[in-house]
Amino acid sequence: MSTPPPDAASDPRRPTLRAKRLRLQTQSEPVVILRSDCHVSRSEGFAARSQILLSNNGHEVQATLYQIDDEELLALDEAGLSESAWEILNVSEGEAVQVSHAPTLESLASVRRRIYGARLDGAAFDAIVHDVVAGRYTEVHLAAFLTAGAAFPLDEAEIYELTRAMVEVGDRLEWDASIVVDKHCVGGLPGNRTTPIVVPIVAAHGLSIPKTSSRAITSPAGTADTMETLAPVELDLATLKHVVDTEGGCIAWGGAVHLSPADDRFVKIEREMDVDTEGQLIASVLSKKLAAGATHVVFDIPIGATAKVRTQEDGDRLARLAEAVAARFGLRICCLKTDGSQPVGRGIGPALEAFDVLAVLKNEADAPDDLRQRAALIAGAALEIGGKARAGTGAQLALETILDGRAWAKFQSICAAQGGLRTPPRACCSEALTAPVSGRVVHINSRKLARLAKLAGAPAAPAAGVVMDIRLGSEIERGQPMLHVHAETQAELDYALDYAARSPDIIEVELPT
Amino acid sequence: MSTPPPDAASDPRRPTLRAKRLRLQTQSEPVVILRSDCHVSRSEGFAARSQILLSNNGHEVQATLYQIDDEELLALDEAGLSESAWEILNVSEGEAVQVSHAPTLESLASVRRRIYGARLDGAAFDAIVHDVVAGRYTEVHLAAFLTAGAAFPLDEAEIYELTRAMVEVGDRLEWDASIVVDKHCVGGLPGNRTTPIVVPIVAAHGLSIPKTSSRAITSPAGTADTMETLAPVELDLATLKHVVDTEGGCIAWGGAVHLSPADDRFVKIEREMDVDTEGQLIASVLSKKLAAGATHVVFDIPIGATAKVRTQEDGDRLARLAEAVAARFGLRICCLKTDGSQPVGRGIGPALEAFDVLAVLKNEADAPDDLRQRAALIAGAALEIGGKARAGTGAQLALETILDGRAWAKFQSICAAQGGLRTPPRACCSEALTAPVSGRVVHINSRKLARLAKLAGAPAAPAAGVVMDIRLGSEIERGQPMLHVHAETQAELDYALDYAARSPDIIEVELPT
Repeated sequence: MSTPPPDAASDPRRPTLRAKRLRLQTQSEPVVILRSDCHVSRSEGFAARSQILLSNNGHEVQATLYQIDDEELLALDEAGLSESAWEILNVSEGEAVQVSHAPTLESLASVRRRIYGARLDGAAFDAIVHDVVAGRYTEVHLAAFLTAGAAFPLDEAEIYELTRAMVEVGDRLEWDASIVVDKHCVGGLPGNRTTPIVVPIVAAHGLSIPKTSSRAITSPAGTADTMETLAPVELDLATLKHVVDTEGGCIAWGGAVHLSPADDRFVKIEREMDVDTEGQLIASVLSKKLAAGATHVVFDIPIGATAKVRTQEDGDRLARLAEAVAARFGLRICCLKTDGSQPVGRGIGPALEAFDVLAVLKNEADAPDDLRQRAALIAGAALEIGGKARAGTGAQLALETILDGRAWAKFQSICAAQGGLRTPPRACCSEALTAPVSGRVVHINSRKLARLAKLAGAPAAPAAGVVMDIRLGSEIERGQPMLHVHAETQAELDYALDYAARSPDIIEVELPT
Repeated sequence: MSTPPPDAASDPRRPTLRAKRLRLQTQSEPVVILRSDCHVSRSEGFAARSQILLSNNGHEVQATLYQIDDEELLALDEAGLSESAWEILNVSEGEAVQVSHAPTLESLASVRRRIYGARLDGAAFDAIVHDVVAGRYTEVHLAAFLTAGAAFPLDEAEIYELTRAMVEVGDRLEWDASIVVDKHCVGGLPGNRTTPIVVPIVAAHGLSIPKTSSRAITSPAGTADTMETLAPVELDLATLKHVVDTEGGCIAWGGAVHLSPADDRFVKIEREMDVDTEGQLIASVLSKKLAAGATHVVFDIPIGATAKVRTQEDGDRLARLAEAVAARFGLRICCLKTDGSQPVGRGIGPALEAFDVLAVLKNEADAPDDLRQRAALIAGAALEIGGKARAGTGAQLALETILDGRAWAKFQSICAAQGGLRTPPRACCSEALTAPVSGRVVHINSRKLARLAKLAGAPAAPAAGVVMDIRLGSEIERGQPMLHVHAETQAELDYALDYAARSPDIIEVELPT
């Protein structure tokens, strides 16, 4: 089958309908609703769930079609648009929209070859990524592409080409500094909120660290969610550049800038499949860092039975592959394999993690030492690869930068530049989960803890989540609290406690022998 | 993560909303629309595109959530349901519906293992197929499962277990006859409409052949679409049984009976991926045939460069595997490898193919001989495995059954039993596609011909499609018609001709040397 000619979308013979904004939220998936008895549906042979192409004055979007038999919602000549379709098409209410069948996707032939084990070259990845960003891949196509890369893992050359294609299709930030530092954590470890501590340490030593972070997708808090309880994070590009120019660093939400837009679509599908692949992970991380203009990257790989990377061997292989691909871009990368056997700090949830961050930065007496040490380790690696500390001395220098108050001072300046330091909210409701027996804590299931915090309302309810009262190895008496669940409504608290009652293995306490 | 307890859906503490029927067509995908500011969305932390579980008096459906900011469409406490969700939930307007997060799908763990190359056992396929039929798999999950089976082809044992699971999860037809014949064609060959000829031949010899067929999914006509222009095909189970009891055979639409319901979901996703795998194809065909109560099956495998099976080796492998799996069920199967190098008969499109069928059955002078010979070949194989003809004599017996009028008589009786013989419609508009040069027809692209017929309106417009004026090897003069495009509207005719003008390789004519 062949694609229509390039001018097909603006063909004056194509049927038109009038745009109607439905204010329908569908995430990134563009949706259009037509009347089942609409003349265009009929003459074009559209069926529900087919992909159709909408165009308006040079703007174009491919959308999933649903059909409705309701005269009140839509007139016969109206095309009801979801918010995502409305924005991409850039129409106004009642404006003419041309509709036609979505063109055949040539790049799917590469996806099919990849499914059967063929290796793809740069041109194939360029075509795929271009179509993905243009919204031409359905979720089925995306899932097929990602599954193929799980069944036959991407090799080093493929990861390089995919990463390059992902960078080229989005915006890129440029900086005057010759060294631009960034950090990334593989994730999967609740409470591991080092970024708001690492950035001020690194910036305090004169290095550029323009950090953009994501919101939570399946976890109870992303760095952007936590940081938002401390300062504004939705910075436009001009503000972001101003903050970095004046303070050396920022801690912003990455969604406001279009770095590696293909990654956003891939990540969502990977989460739904619950499949992580090394190749896609490396392409995701490196494409974001390259697009953000980074020259030096610290890559935190927590390893633990319930973390994302489960064995030392998996961590080693991931690090080797990331280093090899980064080298092809001239990007310096330092991979740190860290302890992923339990959550970091005490809080799990946006505001609860923010309180841990503040305690460390302000050197409060009860500040969680594991979070402080881990932040110092990562910041130290950044100072070393950035040339601000000799090998082996970075972590100590980073720790001193916390202890002497420079990190806290820089953090306050960054928050002020981003729009002003805020006080994180406190939840109204809280209840303890107590030990069922006396003994020693032998296992903490990070995945189930994350789920508990989410059921309590995190991250949508920023004050919600979990505060840990124990760590691995803690000795505990029957009836003593192991953790506290925090929620913004009693219903959410009940819902979370209900889950906890059904999940005795969130925290395992072993009887003394 | 763990699943909620079995009674979670009827937990009185679960929040409820009032059902509202939106009359929204979404094919098989259940969709629910809630207000973005609805208290349930808020307290449950639902996000657009998440999967949520709806329940009502023991009925349960998992639906994709969209959110809307429009007070006119939905009240705050309403849940707007697509037709698919509405039917499964079995609610009435305004009735209470409980909502919660969709439970974690344990069977996805098997899909993930399969992606990484592990073989699945019967229990794993049972769990997957059960969840698929219950509507718990999203399109992403289905695509991941199907891609895994393409990357690492299902082995014979897996195909057997998948087929078995697919049969067990649906309805099964039972017949008194000890021999129940069925036929299936791999497809991909336009105009290959042998079923309405094969069934009356086989039934005329006293064999049972309760044939259920599909409508077109991506082709310009399915057997059910063609047959519907000749007689009613949407028979309920009682009518279908009555027709077979009295006439020995039927030609009905399979959608009215729930044979192998998992297959309907798999096929849709395979088409969207445009990926066919032997394993899934065999499971699809055999599960439908076993569920339909067949004991003997003729399997037509057309082989050609633009057909679904492209090489003799692929055809041989498919036949061997199908025979091996069928044997495990005690099902007798006869695989016929046929010529797939060009369309069969003249018409492509529901009514146009029906005219070919009528011409053959009525022994009209201009009846397409290739269609007659092919139908005789398949019917002959059925007569042989059904014990009505000695090996090597079936095709001749079948041909005689056409020539002496018995097939036409039986066809008329079957149509009468199904509700009455109809006259297929004729299109109002038609235009020839002429040869660009004089010469010999050396190649016919079946895929592009199918696309041309679809752009002309087939199968939604039953009279639309293509009539071939040439075959491979025909000598043709410049300006003579190669085919005629038929359409029910001028707009559709223009649209199809526009495609033809851009696709010079639909039919290739070679200049004499």
